[in-house]
Amino acid sequence: MRRLNVSLAERSYPILIGEGLLSQTGLVLPMLQTKRVALVTNVKLADLYLETLANALEKVGVGITPIILPDGEAHKNWESLNLIYDAMLTHRCDRGTSVLALGGGVIGDLAGFAAATFQRGVPFIQIPTTLLSQVDSSVGGKTGINHPFGKNMIGAFWQPKLVLADTDTLKTLPDRELSAGLAEIIKYGLIRDLPFLEWLETNMDGLLAKDGELLAYAIERSCMNKAEVVAADEYETARDGGRALLNLGHTFGHAIETGLGYGVCLHGEAVAIGSVMAAELSQRLGWLSAAEVDRIRSLFKRANLPVEGPKLGAVRYLELMSHDKKVVAGRLRLVLLKSLGEAVTHADAPQNQVVAAIESCCRA
Amino acid sequence: MRRLNVSLAERSYPILIGEGLLSQTGLVLPMLQTKRVALVTNVKLADLYLETLANALEKVGVGITPIILPDGEAHKNWESLNLIYDAMLTHRCDRGTSVLALGGGVIGDLAGFAAATFQRGVPFIQIPTTLLSQVDSSVGGKTGINHPFGKNMIGAFWQPKLVLADTDTLKTLPDRELSAGLAEIIKYGLIRDLPFLEWLETNMDGLLAKDGELLAYAIERSCMNKAEVVAADEYETARDGGRALLNLGHTFGHAIETGLGYGVCLHGEAVAIGSVMAAELSQRLGWLSAAEVDRIRSLFKRANLPVEGPKLGAVRYLELMSHDKKVVAGRLRLVLLKSLGEAVTHADAPQNQVVAAIESCCRA
Repeated sequence: MRRLNVSLAERSYPILIGEGLLSQTGLVLPMLQTKRVALVTNVKLADLYLETLANALEKVGVGITPIILPDGEAHKNWESLNLIYDAMLTHRCDRGTSVLALGGGVIGDLAGFAAATFQRGVPFIQIPTTLLSQVDSSVGGKTGINHPFGKNMIGAFWQPKLVLADTDTLKTLPDRELSAGLAEIIKYGLIRDLPFLEWLETNMDGLLAKDGELLAYAIERSCMNKAEVVAADEYETARDGGRALLNLGHTFGHAIETGLGYGVCLHGEAVAIGSVMAAELSQRLGWLSAAEVDRIRSLFKRANLPVEGPKLGAVRYLELMSHDKKVVAGRLRLVLLKSLGEAVTHADAPQNQVVAAIESCCRA
Repeated sequence: MRRLNVSLAERSYPILIGEGLLSQTGLVLPMLQTKRVALVTNVKLADLYLETLANALEKVGVGITPIILPDGEAHKNWESLNLIYDAMLTHRCDRGTSVLALGGGVIGDLAGFAAATFQRGVPFIQIPTTLLSQVDSSVGGKTGINHPFGKNMIGAFWQPKLVLADTDTLKTLPDRELSAGLAEIIKYGLIRDLPFLEWLETNMDGLLAKDGELLAYAIERSCMNKAEVVAADEYETARDGGRALLNLGHTFGHAIETGLGYGVCLHGEAVAIGSVMAAELSQRLGWLSAAEVDRIRSLFKRANLPVEGPKLGAVRYLELMSHDKKVVAGRLRLVLLKSLGEAVTHADAPQNQVVAAIESCCRA
């Protein structure tokens, strides 16, 4: 088992990565305030893992309220959130009850926001079951739901007490979702870890073949990168850089996701396309060479990720991007690459170059 | 103008109390992150004060999105919260936009929760316009909405950047709401400030006559008491005492409010009845004399507050009280009086004595 720590003073917490962690109650039990858990998951994951986890916890005397939500990003909304609140209140969960998220990013974000807001906050534990959530959304305390006007518009920062990444859950992960997770993994290399980017170029085939050791290393190294960034800028308040750098490709990506309607394109797929758009723009600003942009595009392609965006038209892209949370006082701040392995936030890209970068990724 | 400080490290903020503060933009302006404000109020207060406040802010270049909600506790729910989110997104409010609450506790709690959760948190300013909210809900960072199963079940801790209590707004306050505010003021005397309790006994008639100087002093002293308690226990995590002591009468009171249906009984009225119930129980535990309970009952009566609860039946009271947020691991923790001016939390009151205390306040 690999073990990392996210250092956030009294909100610090461990990330545990390894095989067969789901049934090891010794890892979860010491993190509970009382022996009561609201276990939030979706219909698909409930079939696969709920029994294993629930049995293990019940055996050590933990009372469980299972809350099984419909599957998919389309359900990351008020209605699902209220299903959680209703179930918790009906089953008399209280301030000592821990909310446990068993699932991918949608479940983690929803359950985390419920934990942040149920009776003004209860303990929260993440058990991410997708590669994407293991390397990204389960770490760092961002929780929330979507609004018809944009993704993650409503939410809170709420740190978990523990993140438990059981790599066994990746065995049942569809290939498309594995690739979506690889998009965020590649992102860490691009923004701050060139040696890791090179490691990924060397080991991409093994990762796609779900080699357990390679996956565990990639998860650990990704979480290490994320933990360092989060520790330095917990609430994304740094004026330049900081946590915002984790959003490479995300402003373009959110526009793609919203423009297509939630759920058409996976988040990781949108991030892949968005990262190539950011790279194209970085090249236009003179920061990357054409060869480096090709290298980025080619790594995403090797991970079976799309690198061309939907033809929404540049005007629609700009409009959707202007709703992004990173807009402050009307200015669009983009995460771009100053060089391979070094991201910066930038608010001064000329609009015609932004348009050109988008269009270079929306060819026929 | 009176000025107090709530000491919460980097979340510290000032409370300003005085006449004519509403149009003094010099007080609000330095607290804004950008010159954008979402101004949340209700229909009644919009008529009275919106123009004054909005004109003053617009004159110094602040862009305002007014959000006018229906009046009353019945609207402290999802629907109103979504009206705020929708308006903020429609008008492109961003992370630099401050949410400003102009109103009583309902508006403050709603707008505060919107601020806590809009794009994972934006700056918040409280301009409380009722005595109750000036001495209680605007200070301390509790925000939230009601759920059909109980009051304030969904919410967050979110500290304001500034509390501006303009005592001029009390001139239009109905007598019944003035009394409701006095209930929480009396509470501070009961739980931790015996000299203030005695001052209130001396000056109750002047307060009811809306003497400006007396009211300003009562607000300042109440806020001072609350600020001290909040500073020592920001997130209500103290195992004994701490912030929970502010809830004298509230567990009984919430049962009364929920049992009657939101809005029938004012919160302060429910707190007055609940405090007498808590005093009756304290007497049964041997902590207060009958004369002291009479003294408490009589002060609430002099403030034109009810001291007898609705006849819901003891079983219903207990059932409603068991939904209280202060229930942890199934145990009901009540705030009681060890002596006049000294509250404690207590989880061991025998149920028959709790019932007797309730019934002693529900006579024909």
